[in-house]
Amino acid sequence: MAKENHGVILPSWSDTTTKKTIINFVNRVNTENTSDYVPPGERIAVFDNDGTLWSEKPFYFQAFFLIDRLKAMAVDHPQWHDTQPYKAILEGDKQAISRLTEKDIIQMLAVTHTGMTVEQFQLIAGSWLKTAKHPRFNRLFTECVFQPMLELLDYLRDNGFKTYIVSGGGVEFVRAFAQEVYGIPPEQVIGSSVKTKFALRDGKFVLVKVPELGSVDDKEGKPVNINLHIGRKPLLAFGNSDGDLAMLQYTSTRDKANLMLLLHHDDGEREWAYDRESKIGRLDKAWDEARQKGWTIVSMQKDFQRVYPFDP
Amino acid sequence: MAKENHGVILPSWSDTTTKKTIINFVNRVNTENTSDYVPPGERIAVFDNDGTLWSEKPFYFQAFFLIDRLKAMAVDHPQWHDTQPYKAILEGDKQAISRLTEKDIIQMLAVTHTGMTVEQFQLIAGSWLKTAKHPRFNRLFTECVFQPMLELLDYLRDNGFKTYIVSGGGVEFVRAFAQEVYGIPPEQVIGSSVKTKFALRDGKFVLVKVPELGSVDDKEGKPVNINLHIGRKPLLAFGNSDGDLAMLQYTSTRDKANLMLLLHHDDGEREWAYDRESKIGRLDKAWDEARQKGWTIVSMQKDFQRVYPFDP
Repeated sequence: MAKENHGVILPSWSDTTTKKTIINFVNRVNTENTSDYVPPGERIAVFDNDGTLWSEKPFYFQAFFLIDRLKAMAVDHPQWHDTQPYKAILEGDKQAISRLTEKDIIQMLAVTHTGMTVEQFQLIAGSWLKTAKHPRFNRLFTECVFQPMLELLDYLRDNGFKTYIVSGGGVEFVRAFAQEVYGIPPEQVIGSSVKTKFALRDGKFVLVKVPELGSVDDKEGKPVNINLHIGRKPLLAFGNSDGDLAMLQYTSTRDKANLMLLLHHDDGEREWAYDRESKIGRLDKAWDEARQKGWTIVSMQKDFQRVYPFDP
Repeated sequence: MAKENHGVILPSWSDTTTKKTIINFVNRVNTENTSDYVPPGERIAVFDNDGTLWSEKPFYFQAFFLIDRLKAMAVDHPQWHDTQPYKAILEGDKQAISRLTEKDIIQMLAVTHTGMTVEQFQLIAGSWLKTAKHPRFNRLFTECVFQPMLELLDYLRDNGFKTYIVSGGGVEFVRAFAQEVYGIPPEQVIGSSVKTKFALRDGKFVLVKVPELGSVDDKEGKPVNINLHIGRKPLLAFGNSDGDLAMLQYTSTRDKANLMLLLHHDDGEREWAYDRESKIGRLDKAWDEARQKGWTIVSMQKDFQRVYPFDP
């Protein structure tokens, strides 16, 4: 049987079918001498990050980081004030921002996310995360995480699961806070990446982040990276958007116990309400497939008793 | 202090300086309230595979697999008996084999290692490993592993280390035996890889191995992949050839306790003797750097009391 917590299991989850489904699933893989039993340590659970473990509105939190980095770096690049795409960002010109091309964004990602060593980037991202605040809540971005999901991560680990993040966000960016905020160590964070180059700088060997795409950890890239990094199929996958569909499909092919979950952002009051029409975090095809296949759709409104740790 | 085993620590290691160096190092990172202390679970140890954990002569064991696969597949490809590079392999024509180009080898790797799903490949490799035998010892390849290294892996894990393989060999190939033979789970195996494609086959989602290079996990590729997959610096790195030099250099940049080890194959009687002049497993630049920097050179002849588990 599942290890019982001292207190109530998943206290910030409402007493709904969803919570029962999760607990029943954990009990199933935890019951020895049944066909669904999986030894502890072999129980892999994968979580999307943006929109699943923390919010992703008004846009991805990593984009706030990019903007703040450009502003900080503009001190040494005065010409950016007259050069697009930088000008649009520095002036907060919404019209110009809406016209940014993919090439513009890649250029700004290269400027803010490459050229430095991995360790330097971790320091930059780490110090930003310690001070930057979300505009709506005036809270650190790392506080805008979902309390029920923190409890779910803990509950799964208490029951012999290895919890992984499989994020479209940058792997180094997510690693900068995953241990402290989610209790997930760097080796259990999979994300999008640029390549790194092993180089000698000032007499010391370092890994330098270079402006070459490594992997886009989104859509079909998620199962591909899960196999590359983990090498076994997850028992549980939790996402919130069409970008997570392939990861859920992959998990659903496991021929024994599995659980596919989709978080539906239907709580405009406490968080945001969006699905099919949203540019960021669109939940459309994955919604249809979840309904058709009986995957678990988690309603933020109904299933989350609390949303953020700072909620009353 | 390090957790003491019930019996003798590292019984197949001779009582030499090397053994003391290893035990002292483990005790150091295990002693609380010192600057070298590292919490269990954050202790990363990385091991090369070919030539470090098992033998690599007369040539890489994965090449035996490739040859046996070509022979098995030739039944359905009779034209291979008249077509190079296949003909050379099928006939065991040493002269023709010595003339094989890199392109030939890539072509044969593609034929034997791609086109199937990841799961199919694991079955193929797994069943080969259960029957194929090393020509010199007439033992399974998975028996041609170094007993002292098996003990070292266990000893490190008993003392809170996560043990990783970082191999130039194919990641799926090494994963096919790493758990059973080394006690290393798939998520702690890093290797060279081809790309995979998430596809629908016969109504089921699968990952298909495709003939496109993913990553060559050798030389500078090793620290690059250690960062990508693990995201923190190893405390201990163990290799045996110039292909491991960058991994050792990277580990040596850790600003606290670290241990860099190189296995020197100097035992032609029990195993093989080779170093600077060897085509496979050349130990030349890494040897010089190890001597210069005081890394630990492990002599198979002097430090290994037993080589293989089947040795008397």
